[in-house]
Amino acid sequence: MKERGVLVIVSGFSGAGKGTVMKALMGKYDNYALSISATTRAPRTGEENGREYFFKSVEEFEKMIAQDQLIEYANYVGNYYGTPKAYVESKLDEGKDVILEIELQGAMKVKEKMPDTVLIFITPPTAEELKNRLVGRGTEDEATINARLRRASEEAGYMEKYDYLLINDDLDTCVRELHELIQSEHWKVSRNIDRINFIREDVKIFSEGE
Amino acid sequence: MKERGVLVIVSGFSGAGKGTVMKALMGKYDNYALSISATTRAPRTGEENGREYFFKSVEEFEKMIAQDQLIEYANYVGNYYGTPKAYVESKLDEGKDVILEIELQGAMKVKEKMPDTVLIFITPPTAEELKNRLVGRGTEDEATINARLRRASEEAGYMEKYDYLLINDDLDTCVRELHELIQSEHWKVSRNIDRINFIREDVKIFSEGE
Repeated sequence: MKERGVLVIVSGFSGAGKGTVMKALMGKYDNYALSISATTRAPRTGEENGREYFFKSVEEFEKMIAQDQLIEYANYVGNYYGTPKAYVESKLDEGKDVILEIELQGAMKVKEKMPDTVLIFITPPTAEELKNRLVGRGTEDEATINARLRRASEEAGYMEKYDYLLINDDLDTCVRELHELIQSEHWKVSRNIDRINFIREDVKIFSEGE
Repeated sequence: MKERGVLVIVSGFSGAGKGTVMKALMGKYDNYALSISATTRAPRTGEENGREYFFKSVEEFEKMIAQDQLIEYANYVGNYYGTPKAYVESKLDEGKDVILEIELQGAMKVKEKMPDTVLIFITPPTAEELKNRLVGRGTEDEATINARLRRASEEAGYMEKYDYLLINDDLDTCVRELHELIQSEHWKVSRNIDRINFIREDVKIFSEGE
């Protein structure tokens, strides 16, 4: 019985360390595929097209929307972000657990379309730690950081819409917990209906006598 | 924030190896408490009162029922089985994850009263393996074994009422998976409302300016 992978959405405040957690998860385990989003925002220093994001022009992005090539898309701080559909579906069929690192608008849209998606919200332990990480990253000016922090305050209102809350205090612990959590999802009864039917048929012999 | 433990029910066919899995889980990790059931069935060779079960007379058991000292109780193959309430509540308050090894009638009753209980069904990979384990145990006569196998056929109809299905093929793997699954439950958003409210208050400073 070839098992389809689990679709996982990881969200969290900017500065929660999602990117670092994802990188460590991918490096440590080989059963994951990280979906690469398309975006119209400008690349940050060090980012490469096709690695962190597919960087698109607004025209290109709107063409993808028109051709229904995205599972979801949203506009966030003036830029489009979206999830290309073909890659996700093919990896799930291969049995890989596919991780989408997207923000909450997108998360809600995917959950609505695909209710067995697992929604995980990653947060630093405190607001102070969140601010320290954003400032420490050193890639954005003060106005952008402040916009992200105000955004965090809005996003906090949606944490209860997620399935799981993970605290990113220690990186190794967070990565291990994330892995165990996703693997445990494979045992959900709703993901094992074929296996249940097999066992049910198999034990029928006992009620029929010998 | 002292966290309350997770209440877990482990059920499964007689012969699924639940007892062995529980023993290994308790031996390997110290964050669990195994609830000891009360029963009116006769002790098997090697079983001790207060270790495997509290062995009770029918009169004693019915007094416990009358005094509301049981979370649930049921009658199974002519004997009473029940879960004493005080022990479970005190261990959950201490932060221990409490495991009830009970059959499905009891499981359904507890889930109804305490909806955040996690229901796990353990099964051997095949019916043949189930029969082999029951016969290999060598503690019961053929009539009892056949009654248990017919019971398994009935029980199979209820597997979908559980939250998780675990295959007990390799003992170590099954124990590890069970542990990871229960620990992951701690991160459920519904179990972290206090923490969410704390973070939400904490990040409010960002929306209020400085």
